[in-house]
Amino acid sequence: MCPATSNEDIPRGYIIPIGGGEDRERDMQIHRRFVELSGGADAAIVVIPTASMLEETGPDYHRIFSELGAGQVEFLPISRRADCDNPEFADLIDRASGIFMTGGNQLRLSAILGGTLLAQKIRRRNAAGVPVAGTSAGASIMSEHMVAGGSSNAAPAEGNITLAPGMGLTNAVIIDQHFTQRNRLGRLLTATSYNPFLIGIGIDEDTAAFIGPDNVFEVVGSGSVTVVDAGQLTHSSMWDARPGEALSLLGLRLDVLGEGCRYDLTARVAYPPDEHLAFCSLPVSSGDPPPEAEG
Amino acid sequence: MCPATSNEDIPRGYIIPIGGGEDRERDMQIHRRFVELSGGADAAIVVIPTASMLEETGPDYHRIFSELGAGQVEFLPISRRADCDNPEFADLIDRASGIFMTGGNQLRLSAILGGTLLAQKIRRRNAAGVPVAGTSAGASIMSEHMVAGGSSNAAPAEGNITLAPGMGLTNAVIIDQHFTQRNRLGRLLTATSYNPFLIGIGIDEDTAAFIGPDNVFEVVGSGSVTVVDAGQLTHSSMWDARPGEALSLLGLRLDVLGEGCRYDLTARVAYPPDEHLAFCSLPVSSGDPPPEAEG
Repeated sequence: MCPATSNEDIPRGYIIPIGGGEDRERDMQIHRRFVELSGGADAAIVVIPTASMLEETGPDYHRIFSELGAGQVEFLPISRRADCDNPEFADLIDRASGIFMTGGNQLRLSAILGGTLLAQKIRRRNAAGVPVAGTSAGASIMSEHMVAGGSSNAAPAEGNITLAPGMGLTNAVIIDQHFTQRNRLGRLLTATSYNPFLIGIGIDEDTAAFIGPDNVFEVVGSGSVTVVDAGQLTHSSMWDARPGEALSLLGLRLDVLGEGCRYDLTARVAYPPDEHLAFCSLPVSSGDPPPEAEG
Repeated sequence: MCPATSNEDIPRGYIIPIGGGEDRERDMQIHRRFVELSGGADAAIVVIPTASMLEETGPDYHRIFSELGAGQVEFLPISRRADCDNPEFADLIDRASGIFMTGGNQLRLSAILGGTLLAQKIRRRNAAGVPVAGTSAGASIMSEHMVAGGSSNAAPAEGNITLAPGMGLTNAVIIDQHFTQRNRLGRLLTATSYNPFLIGIGIDEDTAAFIGPDNVFEVVGSGSVTVVDAGQLTHSSMWDARPGEALSLLGLRLDVLGEGCRYDLTARVAYPPDEHLAFCSLPVSSGDPPPEAEG
């Protein structure tokens, strides 16, 4: 399953959606792994704080990644579309070994970055092997189909989710964040039943899915990643349900993955922490050994 | 799949858990179907209001079932264990063609009825073909393993559900009620992962699962029935998770069944409204035709 690493076939970089609310003070294991993947002391990390309206967001991540030993950290003060044409910013993206998108409002992020040269460069850098991470809004925007909003409810219902075009780093998944904390299973069921091609990934706070070049992701953090797979759907009443009518969705698969579990997005199979792809797993951070196979 | 109906092999009666909050004023389709199954104008329905502390509960159901044309309706004012020895009550159960347990507190119900002759008679009547329905607390108590309480949360977690012995009309399922309304998926996932033998049935308000003698149930009402099947579970970290640690549960199956959908508890397969077992389906109430195959 490990992709070839020859020059003709460069594997794409990790895609790392984070569910928001991640630890930024103590172990910072998610950020630590991201820095490690970005090259550690040789890393050149670029932070895009555009989703956030808070002035301190960029500087805050500058502190975090610097503390974790990243060689170089920059944040791009992009607050309008014209900023995306700044050649200095383009140059920083071109030289980045890791890109991080902060939380905030994903529609602000997509409205400002969408269709710009900078967004294209981020996609190309990721395709060339550079890891791209994003938390909360920054996680939602990564997929081709982005969750822009919706209601909190355990039950699926037509119209309880708002989709918008995202950045398109992957089109295999649709990503939701603050998942358990904000009770978002219903809307993720809705999204995956709209088109069962998509695998729904609901990421809890302080939790990340490290999606490798082989389309296998590993869970890192204190929460769970819930995977909704409607690929075996045998029946859906979504298309002809009357407003307010309870839906039928038969044949869904559900996996709840704790830390260390892996999920193969191609085969649509989940693996416990102690199985599968050991030779292909995430690099081990020197400061934060991976959990033992205890579950 | 339809059981034989010879004298030597009497099929057991329907088991009808209702998710609480059912319509008691307008169409009353759930109660209507129950009255029909109990014999309509020839029905002798016995209501057990013991879970409730409200004086009006018994009379209220007396009104409902009478309005719906039941020939005879009685409610048993059982408020302590000694009441269960009342020979008059035993006689009414012996002659009942339908038994209904109201909402309230299922631990009150199990504490007062559990182990009494009356509880044994209810089980025996059901085994002899008499339908038994229960709403809310009255639904929970029906299964061998009863949900006595727990927390509202979308995520599974050890200890987030309290189990107690129930009435044991069926041991194939564990029943939770007010399901979507009170966000109870997490605790139902916990219960089914404790022992994947159990199928978890989460019933929304104003919704019922009519479990037939063939162990196939049909959904009636305005909400959904969520079925959690952990029978294919490939990994669980439940048994060795540390307190507060996010769990891993891999390989769950989930079906969300709207009105008219059926679920075969033996085969663990869900069917849309227009498929399967038409010859064996629920009797049609004259006042309430079944939904067309529109989903």
